[in-house]
Amino acid sequence: MKSLWEKLEEYSASDYYPFHMPGHKRFPKENALAFHKRFPKENALAFHKRFPLENIYLYDITEIEGFDNLHDAKGILRALQQKAARIYHAEQSFFLVNGSTGGILSAVSTVAKEGKKLLIARNCHKSVYNAILLNRLHVEYLWPDMIEEFDVQGGISAEEVKKHLAGRKDICGVVITSPTYDGIVSDICQIAEEVHLCHIPLIVDEAHGAHFVLSEKAPKSAVECGADLVINSVHKTLPALTQTALLHVQGTLVDREKLKNYLSIYQSSSPSYILMASIDKCVDFIEDYGAECFEMLLAFRKRVDEKASGFLCLKLLFDCENRDPGKLVISVKDTDITGQELYRILLEKYYLQLEMATPTYVLGILTGMDTWEGVERLIHALTEIDGEIAERMGDERKIKRKQKMDDIYSIIPKSSGLSIFEVAQKKKDWIPLEQSDGRVSGGMLCFYPPGIPFIVPGEIIGKEQISQMEKCRKNGEYLTGVSEEGKLCVLRE
Amino acid sequence: MKSLWEKLEEYSASDYYPFHMPGHKRFPKENALAFHKRFPKENALAFHKRFPLENIYLYDITEIEGFDNLHDAKGILRALQQKAARIYHAEQSFFLVNGSTGGILSAVSTVAKEGKKLLIARNCHKSVYNAILLNRLHVEYLWPDMIEEFDVQGGISAEEVKKHLAGRKDICGVVITSPTYDGIVSDICQIAEEVHLCHIPLIVDEAHGAHFVLSEKAPKSAVECGADLVINSVHKTLPALTQTALLHVQGTLVDREKLKNYLSIYQSSSPSYILMASIDKCVDFIEDYGAECFEMLLAFRKRVDEKASGFLCLKLLFDCENRDPGKLVISVKDTDITGQELYRILLEKYYLQLEMATPTYVLGILTGMDTWEGVERLIHALTEIDGEIAERMGDERKIKRKQKMDDIYSIIPKSSGLSIFEVAQKKKDWIPLEQSDGRVSGGMLCFYPPGIPFIVPGEIIGKEQISQMEKCRKNGEYLTGVSEEGKLCVLRE
Repeated sequence: MKSLWEKLEEYSASDYYPFHMPGHKRFPKENALAFHKRFPKENALAFHKRFPLENIYLYDITEIEGFDNLHDAKGILRALQQKAARIYHAEQSFFLVNGSTGGILSAVSTVAKEGKKLLIARNCHKSVYNAILLNRLHVEYLWPDMIEEFDVQGGISAEEVKKHLAGRKDICGVVITSPTYDGIVSDICQIAEEVHLCHIPLIVDEAHGAHFVLSEKAPKSAVECGADLVINSVHKTLPALTQTALLHVQGTLVDREKLKNYLSIYQSSSPSYILMASIDKCVDFIEDYGAECFEMLLAFRKRVDEKASGFLCLKLLFDCENRDPGKLVISVKDTDITGQELYRILLEKYYLQLEMATPTYVLGILTGMDTWEGVERLIHALTEIDGEIAERMGDERKIKRKQKMDDIYSIIPKSSGLSIFEVAQKKKDWIPLEQSDGRVSGGMLCFYPPGIPFIVPGEIIGKEQISQMEKCRKNGEYLTGVSEEGKLCVLRE
Repeated sequence: MKSLWEKLEEYSASDYYPFHMPGHKRFPKENALAFHKRFPKENALAFHKRFPLENIYLYDITEIEGFDNLHDAKGILRALQQKAARIYHAEQSFFLVNGSTGGILSAVSTVAKEGKKLLIARNCHKSVYNAILLNRLHVEYLWPDMIEEFDVQGGISAEEVKKHLAGRKDICGVVITSPTYDGIVSDICQIAEEVHLCHIPLIVDEAHGAHFVLSEKAPKSAVECGADLVINSVHKTLPALTQTALLHVQGTLVDREKLKNYLSIYQSSSPSYILMASIDKCVDFIEDYGAECFEMLLAFRKRVDEKASGFLCLKLLFDCENRDPGKLVISVKDTDITGQELYRILLEKYYLQLEMATPTYVLGILTGMDTWEGVERLIHALTEIDGEIAERMGDERKIKRKQKMDDIYSIIPKSSGLSIFEVAQKKKDWIPLEQSDGRVSGGMLCFYPPGIPFIVPGEIIGKEQISQMEKCRKNGEYLTGVSEEGKLCVLRE
């Protein structure tokens, strides 16, 4: 079967002339050259610069003859989505052009039942909370364990899920994030079993685990574990363009017509063929080279682990069976610098752009598409920084800890009983952070990345949380929901 | 100020190494060459083909240092959106990466008020109806006039709007599509005045009129007419990639915090920098060459009009003050062929891909990015086809009309009183089209394009509508909501 890209390529080389969208009319090279002549202000070269990578435009089409319609796929897009399903061992897969966000909104909306509750891991992505708002659901939380040594949130246990579901008839579905942003994988097989005992569907936000399907050496994918709805962000860990993802569905617990309808609600009615072709190319790549690509990742990881095992102060969260080897969690807990400081040094001195920093660690993403040059540069940088810290700290090492991370997610906020939607309907005020003790939050307070909510609308803000937010703001962490002037949104009393 | 593309270009040429998303790690050319060596199955050239236009990947980044965050723009993205606002004469503008769809959902959700009604033009895009579902709104319709001679839906009159709003306190906002898919422009200035008398906001879906801002010779843009929220699909008529759009807001009737929140709900939390750079390039193009580009469009149009005035059978809807010159509505009402037949002949014999066909006309899109070669090919084709029709029809011409278009939108369906959301909650069955007389529709029945609903969920299906749907299906029109076997979704009785 031809890839979407090959079909676009063929089409772009054909003589078909477009009296349709998009308005750029595909800028074929010859025409772009001719086109600039209309504009005497600048020469051909300058004009070319106006539309960089003009080839993109050449392949950027709309739903014309032979190119199907994503929202009612009956031709090539159906076939390509079937190929994706085969590669991902799913019964049915959908291309997503509005990122995992569009998939999460669609999955939750499909599962939502009026008057019922959703059981979700507290560390779900903001999009899950947005879906809860849109569907006016009440919610109950599964709190992840902490991996104390690294101040990293752990997985959700099947035991915890079982406890919440026992004897319950008012829960319409369960949502788990696995792997987490930090690479922690929950036991989805066991969780799926527990959830299915209640005859309700399990949604797994596996946005960060699209590469698990590459190899048997990777953690088992959520689809293979029996989750009903699984969202994979192919751009995060695989070679696909940003904003692309896949949604997989299996089993009989999910109404597929409803799902298809929500996918066409939350995604553009003019989906980008460039983005779709990029998903398709990525699926082909997995089929042909998935295993090799994962071996490459493991080789990079092995090299980093070997070197990191000799570090005196910095500590690497080693991978094991239930961790994603693609996530490098580099802890500064036993050092005299913060995660943000390490992040800055890596960026400014070594030109290494990491994914994010917390007070006690930095997070890097490693994929099979990395290069030895990059990996060696990171090892060199970390080795040098580690040596400097050790020299500075001397005997203080292993004793002094500049940063004891307050586990910001360890305090369980009290709920006012209002749903996120109910809060959205009420009048609100913006008040200074320090005056918000005891008030009901009108907004979502999130550290971004990873976009996991610290306080959800409708929860009561407490003293401890205020002091933590103040500290985090001082540390330069990026806290959404708090204004530049340090105000936050509360319900009017 | 540097464009986003220039900043991406600079960054891609820098030495920064990515330990972050996206997983393709930007495939810099040298690395892509090295990369293939990991995969002994194929050579460098074959590997290159796996990632066509590898430069796209080179520029495809995420929210790293210096590149801001679309959902909380404080740096370059804020500045670029301010530039877009200036060019579009709006107080504030937002980049949209989930198409106009994301903008429409956000605009309606912002304006929606619990327990109130939305007043909308019946020929609104499906996304407006989807927003009504999500917000559980009840709705009231403004029915467009018909331009009888062409079987084309006309505009919405301010008079009609006034009639609906008189003495009403239960309407929270008004939504109008202008220009329509066929290029018909409503008097937004007058409509805005009427709507503002009720102190409610006017949303204009100007997806098809993003180019009105190019020149004073174009119809006045909805922003300049005083609409509160305006959505422009920049990819439809301007040089921008598919799935890109802009949302403009002005005045005090719209809660901007709420709007920003909904924009971050309905759009990916990993927005594509390629799409955003394409919007930015398009805005620059408007600023530097908008007027010239519009002159070009007018020149193309003039040439088509001149030639079409000599046609014996085919008829072109001429542009005038309140029409978009970019839309070519070519009527076959006085001929012996259908619109679909004309569409097929243009495609198969002349390699001209038009935008869409109805039984009585075809629609083509003309922009300043067209070429004289394309325009002349269209004129040549239409002239030849017109001659052939005239010869075939002989004296019958002007007498016989094979196609009298049944105005599919002329029958106003009865409502069951249920809102779209209420219908979504009920049990449904799929039954054959011919058995659906008197049943309440459970689905949205839409001719696509243009995606304007023929029957909305909750409306009662009548005999006339059944026979029209059957006819349209026979004519090969693409009717969404009806299965391949000719079944449609109704409420269970």
